[in-house]
Parts: sequence; structure tokens; C-alpha cells
Amino acid sequence: MLVTGLLVATLGVAMLLPALVDLAADNKDWMIFASSGTMTMLVGLGLFAANRGIPKGLSTRQAMLMTVVSWVALVAFGALPFHWSGVVPSYTDAFFESMSGLTTTGATVITGLDGAPPGILFWRGLLQWLGGLGIIVMAIAVLPMLQIGGMQLFKAEAFDTAEKILPRATQISTSITLVFIAMTGLCAVAYMAVGMAADDAVIHAMTTVATGGFSTKDASIGYFNNAAVEWIAVVFMVLGSIPFILYVQMLQGRFRPFLADDQVKAFAGFLAVAILAGWMMAHFSENHIGLEGLRHSAFNVVSIATGTGYASTDYGLWGPHAVTFFFIIMFVGGCAGSTSCGIKIFRFQVLIEAVRQHVSQVMYPHGVFRARFNGKPIQDRVIASVMSFFFLFMTSFVVLAILLRLSGLDTVTALSGAGTALSNVGPGLGEIIGPSGNFQSLSDLQKWLLAAGMLLGRLELFTVLVLFLPRFWRS
Amino acid sequence: MLVTGLLVATLGVAMLLPALVDLAADNKDWMIFASSGTMTMLVGLGLFAANRGIPKGLSTRQAMLMTVVSWVALVAFGALPFHWSGVVPSYTDAFFESMSGLTTTGATVITGLDGAPPGILFWRGLLQWLGGLGIIVMAIAVLPMLQIGGMQLFKAEAFDTAEKILPRATQISTSITLVFIAMTGLCAVAYMAVGMAADDAVIHAMTTVATGGFSTKDASIGYFNNAAVEWIAVVFMVLGSIPFILYVQMLQGRFRPFLADDQVKAFAGFLAVAILAGWMMAHFSENHIGLEGLRHSAFNVVSIATGTGYASTDYGLWGPHAVTFFFIIMFVGGCAGSTSCGIKIFRFQVLIEAVRQHVSQVMYPHGVFRARFNGKPIQDRVIASVMSFFFLFMTSFVVLAILLRLSGLDTVTALSGAGTALSNVGPGLGEIIGPSGNFQSLSDLQKWLLAAGMLLGRLELFTVLVLFLPRFWRS
Repeated sequence: MLVTGLLVATLGVAMLLPALVDLAADNKDWMIFASSGTMTMLVGLGLFAANRGIPKGLSTRQAMLMTVVSWVALVAFGALPFHWSGVVPSYTDAFFESMSGLTTTGATVITGLDGAPPGILFWRGLLQWLGGLGIIVMAIAVLPMLQIGGMQLFKAEAFDTAEKILPRATQISTSITLVFIAMTGLCAVAYMAVGMAADDAVIHAMTTVATGGFSTKDASIGYFNNAAVEWIAVVFMVLGSIPFILYVQMLQGRFRPFLADDQVKAFAGFLAVAILAGWMMAHFSENHIGLEGLRHSAFNVVSIATGTGYASTDYGLWGPHAVTFFFIIMFVGGCAGSTSCGIKIFRFQVLIEAVRQHVSQVMYPHGVFRARFNGKPIQDRVIASVMSFFFLFMTSFVVLAILLRLSGLDTVTALSGAGTALSNVGPGLGEIIGPSGNFQSLSDLQKWLLAAGMLLGRLELFTVLVLFLPRFWRS
Repeated sequence: MLVTGLLVATLGVAMLLPALVDLAADNKDWMIFASSGTMTMLVGLGLFAANRGIPKGLSTRQAMLMTVVSWVALVAFGALPFHWSGVVPSYTDAFFESMSGLTTTGATVITGLDGAPPGILFWRGLLQWLGGLGIIVMAIAVLPMLQIGGMQLFKAEAFDTAEKILPRATQISTSITLVFIAMTGLCAVAYMAVGMAADDAVIHAMTTVATGGFSTKDASIGYFNNAAVEWIAVVFMVLGSIPFILYVQMLQGRFRPFLADDQVKAFAGFLAVAILAGWMMAHFSENHIGLEGLRHSAFNVVSIATGTGYASTDYGLWGPHAVTFFFIIMFVGGCAGSTSCGIKIFRFQVLIEAVRQHVSQVMYPHGVFRARFNGKPIQDRVIASVMSFFFLFMTSFVVLAILLRLSGLDTVTALSGAGTALSNVGPGLGEIIGPSGNFQSLSDLQKWLLAAGMLLGRLELFTVLVLFLPRFWRS
């Protein structure tokens, strides 16, 4: 509760930024941000104060509960400006938008973004940016400790010895925050250099680097219809999907970890193949011929695979296999320890290694085979962890898709909605929630289901699902 | 090759049975069966003789290669009567029908079954019956030895010590064959008792107990429109999906293994829930009101879940969720060590146990948790085996569905076709290959893909897939 309070109070402070934006733009909304910011701060500080005396040592279960409670509290408070400003009439919609922001999903219920108040647009960008930063820190500091979904693979290197954990964690978090700020600044400058207005550039930079996908335009990045803008977005979406710890190491002059990283290599290879496949579909379906096909394929494939969710065109129309193709790459995601989402590259690698090792073992019963990742043997526990993650991911996907289907959505919308929420991508497929659609028209129940799916995906399933086990609540 | 030769020769002998049937019915086809039988026998005996001198000790790789080669050879020879009799004009179709028979899938390319020659109808039933028997023996004697997909779970009990393996295997196989014959006889008598003609009763009994699904009528069991026939089929399909070793133990007076079996209990529970759900759909969609809904739900749910593939009605019309429902239960299958197919109940149990154990471990890092099956702890290796199976099954399913989609089928047909082939169910969903459809209209490429899928599913994936690894062929 101490941490939750602190985080909520920070969110309150963050709300003052859009208040300044609106004040500068002479928009009345500044009062809404100021008041919701003040309230959020007060509640946060209250929580903080009330829990000060409680000892700090966290059990695993307390850490999980704290993570989930903090996220839900942040989303609930983050929704206030949307609701109170009247931009989003119902609290359900405001909660959905806030959840989609903080989890860097990028699905939106707001139509008429082009004419929306500047403070609200800035708040959406800021939510995704803060969410992205929170996710990287969580992926480095919290999830490996909780041994969730194989994330313990990434524990050893950052925190060598027990005594060093706290100073090292603080130091690494600070370095990563600086890298994240610098990268966002660079991205914003690049956008401005190719002609984007300053406010659009800053907001898009925040949602690009966070692989979030909120835009200031209904037509998303497609609005600018500018190849340079799209290529810049491609570069920074990819940069946002690479483990941030590698950047910190590079700043320390250590380039080897980056160049030798199995995950980065596999991610690059996967993107190359997927972009090529997308290019062929764009070209042969005669939607975008030649190099224009490459441009649109690179942009949309990277956007979906990294879980960003921008769109430059309705890629669902690229021939008969486009829908299937984009549905599949939706699940992949980027690297662990980045802002991106989905199943993530390293899990596929661990799984393939495990299957390969198992098959070798079956063929040569007396041989000794060891699955390896980044040159080190993978422990059996990590493999079990990753396999459990896959199983829970598939189960969650099927259950969510069935619930959405039962709630009245058609099959394509239900399937892609479940996928896009769990993988924190943004747009789904089909007419309703596809790249040219909007989540506005869904029912309240459907929005709550999708918001729950986003949280589930963002917190890597386990953290949320264990709360539903009776055993979790036994003392 | 020795074993392959012996099996092929046995198939040749089996072909003489339909020859007798045709002879009795005064149908010219008897000559076709006699000649193809003779040829098959000669090839088989030739193979047998040519390999006699080779030492018998089999490495794991040799055992896998032998299994795959034997199945393909049996299917190829089993196709001859279809092709030569002219009932199935192309060899592709004949191969598809033979594969569908021996793997107890039950998908057919023959239309006009009602007027087909008796020998051919009998041959189709016999293929499924022999296939079913072969599968049980393989599941007990071969797969556990190869440690495929967690089947090693079932090794310990049957073969306690190394010296006893061969006499025990022969003894158990004999007992199981006798149980299988007795069960088929009982089923045929039951069918006749409620009014089925003797020839239909025998053929349906063979394909019911083998959970195969070939019928002598285009309208499948629906032709008889007889509740008693359907309930008899339900009972014997379920009996065919229970580990046959348990029957042998019951004949020895040991009822405890049956009553205490985790797999049987879970299977019964699953069927009860699924039949209830199907009943509700049949009733509320107003296709089959009240108890008639129960009858149709019990029959079709059991038929699909056990991988038999009979149909009594077009269940795809039972409301908006029927297609999704039947698509999902298609994958479940029955128990290991039976004639049924699909993923099989025990794999779900092992997986759920493993995930439960993992989650407990995450919550209590210092606790000691052990996944258990039938009261015994599950070895880590078995869990890895089962998880690999799931991964390969899903991958095979996605790849096969994509290939079928690329070959020009619509999404529902491609998805359900891939599922029905891999799970050896029989009918798919949709208009083309659904319960009222037929595989005849598919292209040759699609038929070969589906036939490959059936073999893959029947041999539990690994056995076939390892042949594609370069490492397999290195000495």
C-alpha cells in the first residue's frame, strides 16, 4: 500500500503537466487536471502515510498483490481527467482509455481526436509514456524476482549478489529512465525535423518509444501521409522493443552484450521475414506497389508485432491472407525488458530450445542435452515457467475470445479483440475494431472484458491470475 | 522392415475377408480383393524374407522409422481395393480413404455409400477396426518405449522389469485383442437387437468400437433415425475411449485400477459437462427440444470428443456458439491406451497439474510441490514431454491450417479441416466438410495435406516429425 500510495501520488503530480499544457493553450480543462491531480495526490499521500509504519519486507504474494493493486489504482485515477473533462462521457469508457494508455495497448474509444482538447491528447501520450517506463522497470526489478513466465532468465546479470540489489536496482532504474527520456527527445526532434508540429511530435514521440500507439489523429500516423514520419516511427518502435538494459550497458561502453544477445538477433530476423511477407502481400494485392509496399509493410508490421498499434492504412485488405498474417504476428511482441508486449521473443526461443532438447533426448536416450539461451544452460524451472506461461496465455485467449463471442461480437472481432487486448497491441481486425475502426461502439461489458485482458497481458498473466486462487488468500 | 513386411502380409490376409463378403453377395469385386490381397501378401512376405537375417535389436530411431514406414505402407496397400474396384477413381482419393480408415479418422471421399458394393463397405469397416486395434497395441507397447508425448507415464505398470517385456507384451496384446473382439461382437449384437440389418450392424460395430466413424450410409448413423441405435453407439464409443488395459485388469478380477483411474474420472466429468452444454444449445436453438436434445447432444458430443465422427444431425446449426463449441471439443480426445485420438485427457491433466505446481512454487518459493497423476509424482521429463507435445500440436495445427487456407479453402473449412485431421475426428465444420458434407470436392493437394495431418496426429507427432530433422539421419 505504501508503494501504491507513492505511485498514485506521482500520477497526481503527472496530471499537472497536462494542466500546464491546457493553461498554455488557454483551455478551461486545466482546472480539471489540476483538481483531479490534487485529489489523486492527496489519496496517494494518504495511502502512503497510513502505511508508513508497516514493515517493508515483502513476501512474494504481497509483491504480487501490490503490483496488481497499484496498476488498477493508477488506471482508475488516470481515468478521472477523461471522465471529468466530458471528452469521454461514461466512466467505463474513461477506464478503458486509461487502461489502454497505461498498459501501452493503444486501443481508443475517443472519436474526433483531431479536435480534442490539447490537455487530453497530452494526457493520453503521457499515460502511455509513464506506462512504458513503468513496464521496463517492472520487467527488470519485479518480474524476475517473482519468477514469472521465465523472466527469472533475466535476473542473474543485473543483480549479481543479494546485498547489491537495492543500490543496483535504483541505479539501473535511473539510467534506464534517462535513456528513455533521451530516446523520447530524439524521436520528438526527428518528427519535428520532417515537418510535424511540435505538440504532435512530442505526443507521438511519447507513444512511439513506449510502443503504445495512441495518436492525436483519428487516422493515426496515416494522417500525415509522410514516408519520413513512418520510417522514423519504425526506427523508434524497434528501439523501444529492445531490452533497455542493453542501452545502459552500451553507455557504459559495453557493446558486446547487445551484439551477442540471442533475443535481439531473433527479433531482427523475425522482423525481416515478417516485413518481407507483408511487402509481398501489399504488392501482389495491388494495394501498394513496389517500394511503397515496403514502406507500408515495414510500418504496419513493426507497429503490430511490437504491440504499438499505429496504422497507416487498412492492411486487412492486403489480399486473402492479410487478416490471418496480422492476427498471428500480433502475438509475437518484442524483447523482454522493453516497453513492448505480447508473448515476447525469448519465450519462443526457450520453447523451441526445450522442444529441440526433448526431441534429441527421445532420439538418443543416453545422450545428455541441455537447452541454452544466451550461451547459458536454461534451468528446468525456467522451461516449466515459460511453458506454463504459454498454456495460461492460450487459455486466457480462448476464454476471453469465448466471452467476447458470447457477449455478441462476431468471430473475427472476438478473436482479434481478445488477441489485441492480451498482447497489448491496440487495433484488432475486422470492421468494428480494425485499423480503421474504434472501440467506442462496443458494449460496457465488452469494454470491461477487454480492459481486464489488457491488465492480464501487461502483468504477464500470473500476477493477476494467482489472485483468483483460494490458496493465495490463505494465510 | 521385418515388422513392416509382417504387417503388410497380415493386411493382405485381411483383404480376403471382404473378398468372402463379396463372394457371398455374388459381387464381382471379390476378384479385386483376392488379387490385391494376394499381391499385398506377396510384397509383405517378400519384405519379411529379405530382412530375415538382420539382427532384431532396435534403436529408438529405427523403431520410429519402422513405425512410420509400416503405417504408410499399410495405408498405401489398403488403398488398392478402393482404387482397383473403381469405387474411388483416383489413387489420391483411395489413399485418403485408406488413411482415414487406418487412422480411425472417418473422413470420407465416397458419396453414394448406400449403394456401394458390400465388399468395399466391409473393407472400410475392417480398416478402421484393424487401425483401432493397432493403435491400442502401439499405445501400450511402442509409444511408452519411445517416450513420446508423455506416454512414458503408462510404461511402469505394464512392464515392470526388462526381462518380462516380451512375454508380458505378447500376453497383454493377446488379452486386449480378445477384449476388442468381444466388445465388437457385443456391439454388433446390440445393434441387431434394435433392428439394424446384420451387415450394417457388423460394420458399424467395427467402426464404433474403434472410434472410427465410417458408416455404410451417406447420412451416417442419422440414416437409421433410431434413438436406441444412437445410445448403443454412445455406450460403445465411450467404452472404446477408455484404456483397454483396464478391461484386461478387470477380467483378472482387479477392479480398483479402473475405479481409481484419474484419467477415466476426468474423461467422465468432461463428457458430462460437454453433453450438458450441447443439450442446452440444441434445446435453446430450438433444433431439438427437451429429451430429444439430450439424445442428439450425447450422441454428437461423444462422437466428436472421442474422435469417432458419426453425425446424427447438422449440429453446426445449434445456435451461434455451436461451431465454436464443436471446434473446441474436437481436440480433446479420449484416454491414452484406447482407440481414440486427439490431444487426450491425461495430457490436459498433466499440464494443469504442472501449472498448478508452478504457480504454488511462485507463491511459496521455499515450499516443495510435486505434480501428481494417479497418485504418483510426475517426473519433470514427462512434463517436458507433454508440454512439447502441446507446442508441436499447436504448431502443426497452425501450419496445416495456413497451408489449407493458402490452398484456397475458406477460414472455417481450413481451421476445422486441420483440427479434424490432426485429432483424427472425421467431419470438420462448415458447408464443405461439415457433418453433412464430404471431402470429395477438395483438391488433390488438400487431400494429401489432410492425409499427412491424420498420420501426424495418429502417430503422436514426434514419431513423424523427427524424420524431418537432419540429425535423425546422421549415423
